[in-house]
Amino acid sequence: MQLIDGKLVSAQVKQEIAAEVADLIAKGGKKPHLAAILVGHDGGSEAYVAGKVKDCEDCGFTSTLIRFDDDVTEEALLAEVEKLNNNKDVDGFIVQLPLPKHISEQKVTEAIDYRKDVDGFHPVNVGRVSLGLPAFVSATPDGILELIKRYKIETAGKHVVVIGRSNIVGKPVANLLMQKAYPGNATVTVVHSYSTDIKEQCLSADIIICALGRPGFLKADMVKDGVVVIDVGTTRVPSTETKSGFRLKGDVDFDNVAPKCSFITPVPGGVGLMTRVSLMKNTLLAGKKEIYK
Amino acid sequence: MQLIDGKLVSAQVKQEIAAEVADLIAKGGKKPHLAAILVGHDGGSEAYVAGKVKDCEDCGFTSTLIRFDDDVTEEALLAEVEKLNNNKDVDGFIVQLPLPKHISEQKVTEAIDYRKDVDGFHPVNVGRVSLGLPAFVSATPDGILELIKRYKIETAGKHVVVIGRSNIVGKPVANLLMQKAYPGNATVTVVHSYSTDIKEQCLSADIIICALGRPGFLKADMVKDGVVVIDVGTTRVPSTETKSGFRLKGDVDFDNVAPKCSFITPVPGGVGLMTRVSLMKNTLLAGKKEIYK
Repeated sequence: MQLIDGKLVSAQVKQEIAAEVADLIAKGGKKPHLAAILVGHDGGSEAYVAGKVKDCEDCGFTSTLIRFDDDVTEEALLAEVEKLNNNKDVDGFIVQLPLPKHISEQKVTEAIDYRKDVDGFHPVNVGRVSLGLPAFVSATPDGILELIKRYKIETAGKHVVVIGRSNIVGKPVANLLMQKAYPGNATVTVVHSYSTDIKEQCLSADIIICALGRPGFLKADMVKDGVVVIDVGTTRVPSTETKSGFRLKGDVDFDNVAPKCSFITPVPGGVGLMTRVSLMKNTLLAGKKEIYK
Repeated sequence: MQLIDGKLVSAQVKQEIAAEVADLIAKGGKKPHLAAILVGHDGGSEAYVAGKVKDCEDCGFTSTLIRFDDDVTEEALLAEVEKLNNNKDVDGFIVQLPLPKHISEQKVTEAIDYRKDVDGFHPVNVGRVSLGLPAFVSATPDGILELIKRYKIETAGKHVVVIGRSNIVGKPVANLLMQKAYPGNATVTVVHSYSTDIKEQCLSADIIICALGRPGFLKADMVKDGVVVIDVGTTRVPSTETKSGFRLKGDVDFDNVAPKCSFITPVPGGVGLMTRVSLMKNTLLAGKKEIYK
């Protein structure tokens, strides 16, 4: 069993990005510029955005943080989105989700110019991923594919089972892994809450991507020997062993599943860290205008 | 075994559309207006477009056919697309594919205003289908779902195997059938040319959607008793029994597979006819501004 080390790979990717940015600047180019809009003071969102700002520093990007109180109107937020769409210095930007209930997340997401949509949530990017066209791939699916690539895990002709059909993980990762590409060319099955055959599907899987958000869901008797397991779950569970009083738990019963695996991602230290660098990868692509002119 | 009668259902749907249009007009509304751009004189494309014009008549729509010779420049074609985008009387329009090689089909497809993209090929519509949002669903997947609905075939918790991963059938129908909806909520597997487990997957399938374009590919020993088979294949094969010298053959070895099925679509007379009415459905939706304002 080999542990997939998200910490190591994400640090590597970050270093590679920083080196490329240094090179860009040496050649007279401009620093990629990521802007983030943060509404309100939700602890989770604050932490995520702070992490993104720090990642920008590490990568040599310019970052701009725009804050609104949580009573901001949808109109004012949309006006800011429009400003960023038109701001030539900003290569890409994100609106940190969730938003307060009086604001439509879908409306805001669709208002972002897809050419600056480094979160990859705009329908144009989602559609282009499904069509097999260059696009900003959203962070978690991109992070999963990056791990598969770095560990040279074969996907062609393999049976991939994706557990969970969310718009930000399950569906896009399934769409990616069925493309004519590497990673890709896999037989892909998506199972979810309505599925009656999750165990059978998992038992036939060469690769399982577990993204349903139920701690310890995937048990040892659900996987075959030699399986690759990618655990996307990050549920906070109470813990007496940490200062914060909680710890992150994945969707996989790690202690019992890991011995049967050829590769497995830990939680924490697996996919989670990769999602952060995927945003940086997209920002670099945006800065270089590699996806859209 | 019950034969799914695409001829009957498509005629029904057309009648329903015509009745709704009559009602719209009685209430002072406007006829839905479909425009089609046809480049060159390819026999297949001519026939398809003629069929669409006739369907418009049957449904009570206005139709406009715009022709270009096959030496039209990409620029001129894009200018026409832009004109139709801005023409307030045109509710929806299509550019008949394939286009001559000197014109980028992708560029033309993406130039169409997604709010008039009744073919459902624009990335916004593809993305919105994947996201589970209202969208113009492309004709073949929509036709398949309509047949499933009309025959009240259960999909929730069923294992659907889609053979083929094309952008116009395999991928969108897979994306649709995994949504939280009816038809939908299915465990969905997509297999294709790289898959090594097509037979095993098919043997476990409750519903098989065969869309790879290889005549007679799905054999009786690949399906279980009681399976639902949707045959999307329409390959022209030589025939001494028809005036034209060819006949359409599906992807399913019909004679041997049908006895094992609970439901099966014939070729011809199955999915093919449904794709035509799906374009009419989308045009009506466009006319009523039901998907986009």
